[in-house]
Amino acid sequence: MISVVLIGFGNVGQHLYKAFKKKKVNLLQVYSPSVKVSEKKGTHFINNVAEIKNADVYIIAIKDDAIPSFTASLPFENRLVVHTSGTSPLKSISPHLRPGVFYPLQTFSKGAKLKWKTIPICIEAEHEKDLKLLKKLGGMLSENVVEISSEERQKLHLAAVWVNNFSNHLFHLAEDFLKAENIDFNLLKPLMLETVKKLDAVSPAEAQTGPAKRHDEKTVASQVALIKDPKQKEIYTLLTQSIQTKF
Amino acid sequence: MISVVLIGFGNVGQHLYKAFKKKKVNLLQVYSPSVKVSEKKGTHFINNVAEIKNADVYIIAIKDDAIPSFTASLPFENRLVVHTSGTSPLKSISPHLRPGVFYPLQTFSKGAKLKWKTIPICIEAEHEKDLKLLKKLGGMLSENVVEISSEERQKLHLAAVWVNNFSNHLFHLAEDFLKAENIDFNLLKPLMLETVKKLDAVSPAEAQTGPAKRHDEKTVASQVALIKDPKQKEIYTLLTQSIQTKF
Repeated sequence: MISVVLIGFGNVGQHLYKAFKKKKVNLLQVYSPSVKVSEKKGTHFINNVAEIKNADVYIIAIKDDAIPSFTASLPFENRLVVHTSGTSPLKSISPHLRPGVFYPLQTFSKGAKLKWKTIPICIEAEHEKDLKLLKKLGGMLSENVVEISSEERQKLHLAAVWVNNFSNHLFHLAEDFLKAENIDFNLLKPLMLETVKKLDAVSPAEAQTGPAKRHDEKTVASQVALIKDPKQKEIYTLLTQSIQTKF
Repeated sequence: MISVVLIGFGNVGQHLYKAFKKKKVNLLQVYSPSVKVSEKKGTHFINNVAEIKNADVYIIAIKDDAIPSFTASLPFENRLVVHTSGTSPLKSISPHLRPGVFYPLQTFSKGAKLKWKTIPICIEAEHEKDLKLLKKLGGMLSENVVEISSEERQKLHLAAVWVNNFSNHLFHLAEDFLKAENIDFNLLKPLMLETVKKLDAVSPAEAQTGPAKRHDEKTVASQVALIKDPKQKEIYTLLTQSIQTKF
């Protein structure tokens, strides 16, 4: 049975912890400088890095820029240490360790209930046996474990920024706009859900609708006139033009 | 029992037709110049405007710019005629009729299965009895019938453009980018679904994550460098700046 030590207990760490416990992964320890020392169902919570035990794999869920220095400080050699970052290269893990990546392609919020079964887990390692172990461990959480290079993972992460960070920001702008107009943002939620769900059946190109696609310049102009914030006008115009280059 | 004639048989018309039949609404006729004359389960399909019968309400699902001229041509007076448009004002319906709006706030694609129960139906009318009728008819399809003025509806439609048209375009750009890099767009789907689903629990402001929000300029710069298309670079930069004004 694969033994795991989890390092970091932020959003990603906590979601991984819950998933590992649910799937009865042999999670020996959770290390974070800020956790209280305790033991829960066979997993020890520790806050002293010197107490980290021997394990088959160390999964680190810490800030990207902390990966090189933190892994350099780990007081053991040649063990499999994997990060969970979308952008950091495999090589960001200190060379005295066997590096790997275990990147769950998902957005992690406190309290969200996730269906791990469908979440792609992007793995990478230098050695075949490490890849095999990561594939096995990923398979305990998800049916969608894929081997992805650091270069591909960075591209995937960029695409994730487009579909998650930027879309969510558009939702944010829409909410702000409706709030200022005293209109209930919740009215948009069935539409937002359908926007994503319809992509099970059709491609985004086929799913595109609206005044920009129809080159309905009258509606576009009346909508631009409704926007007060100049930055938001600029975004509206740029996205409208961008849609129109496609249709 | 409210009797209905449906005018127009495009995406919106066909979805309304299906919903009305499912909910056993008394749908007398469907008129469209392009349908074949026929009869299905008590509803007559006609393509001759002169054959339109007397009904409690006429629901027109045609192109926005056609509403004034088409309604002006209707060979009867003082009957309730409602359009289904997000942008057209109530007054776009010819003044010889009693105007109304029956706007389902959703994106309608061929073949999509919709949960009408949750779709907001935005209604508007000049007379109390017409409003009452629209509320009753809307209530047969949805639990979410709301009275909305033309002005509010236009704002809601603008917000719908942000959350649906523009988000879908970001999905389109992400798909194009990944295709060019030979990476499977489907890997993003669980993330896209969660992007919307998490908003049941938190606001878009609380849900925001990513390099822009964290002011992680290193990642932002490396992502901009990955984008080849200058227009897309511009969109990335503008949305990143816009996120950063919020956090």
